[in-house]
Amino acid sequence: MKSFGEIYSACEKRLKDEVLLKGKNLGNGILKVDFFINHQIYPEIMEMVGESIASFFEDKEVTKVITVESSGIVPAYVAAKYLGVPMVFARKSKPITMEESICDSAPSHTKGGIVHLHISKEFLNKEDRILIVDDFLASGKTIEALCKMLESEEINIAGVATVIEKTFESGRDLLKTSFDFPVLSMLRIASLENGKIILE
Amino acid sequence: MKSFGEIYSACEKRLKDEVLLKGKNLGNGILKVDFFINHQIYPEIMEMVGESIASFFEDKEVTKVITVESSGIVPAYVAAKYLGVPMVFARKSKPITMEESICDSAPSHTKGGIVHLHISKEFLNKEDRILIVDDFLASGKTIEALCKMLESEEINIAGVATVIEKTFESGRDLLKTSFDFPVLSMLRIASLENGKIILE
Repeated sequence: MKSFGEIYSACEKRLKDEVLLKGKNLGNGILKVDFFINHQIYPEIMEMVGESIASFFEDKEVTKVITVESSGIVPAYVAAKYLGVPMVFARKSKPITMEESICDSAPSHTKGGIVHLHISKEFLNKEDRILIVDDFLASGKTIEALCKMLESEEINIAGVATVIEKTFESGRDLLKTSFDFPVLSMLRIASLENGKIILE
Repeated sequence: MKSFGEIYSACEKRLKDEVLLKGKNLGNGILKVDFFINHQIYPEIMEMVGESIASFFEDKEVTKVITVESSGIVPAYVAAKYLGVPMVFARKSKPITMEESICDSAPSHTKGGIVHLHISKEFLNKEDRILIVDDFLASGKTIEALCKMLESEEINIAGVATVIEKTFESGRDLLKTSFDFPVLSMLRIASLENGKIILE
């Protein structure tokens, strides 16, 4: 069986190659990576991402993976599959099929405006240990809102994993001031200044 | 290697058991199955669904799987993974990262109002043969809109696969009047009258 380090390194290298080759810096801190995560999905890459996340959290007693629709769904699904637990995706608007729910909202830079988050209480319980997975860790505000929603229900959080972290937006620091769980990112972007993509 | 029939039968049986045990008829033709597809996802079930779809279409020269965010993403992803092709999810609003796109709209019964669909032209080309995957086949209007978007770009469609078909809404007939590709559904609901869930 491969170690976390081996799985992670192969995945990180693949993501670096892909992002440097095909990613686009659109300015204003926005990185276009819809060729593999926000619109088109390469299963081969996402299996590596999900397996890496699962390998890191495999001894953390995760009972459920939670993400936010839509771009978080695939990495969250694959991580959940490798961990052998269910996945729940928070909805941005409350569907008519959703009964009692917890909700919160957070500002979104790439979407503009406010993102609302709804999770049905049917799929949460106090014995859960939640792994939060999302596509980007940027300002950290969406993930912070998810964490607060779970804390309001006294549900434990095992950690956070994201595919791409924009370290220059300091989301990790925001989470570290309020929470004490591990935060894993598969690829870190140090800067999007001057039209370039600078990796850490 | 298992045959399509074996894979399909096991999956259909599992879906029947789950839907009869945990599905809820909310009235007005709406089936609540958010315990396994629209909010919470069981990887074990979705792997069966995706493998069944891929097995049915494995000799149909599919080059890409297309779905609509959000509930179609996981079944589409798993089918794409088993077929070894990329997946693209149509967006319901155009993100700022999306450049030239094709778009259309369709009425949605469960969501109320109109659903808009946007696919970037970057990820479509005339050599593609597309498999469309979605969670539900009901009126068929969303899938019809997707098919028309692809036809407007002269892109071939290999077929349609959905997890649950509400046969009483006749979406299959709608598709059959305009298109000549196979339509696969994993589970068929014959009626949601009188608070019951009647399977075919």
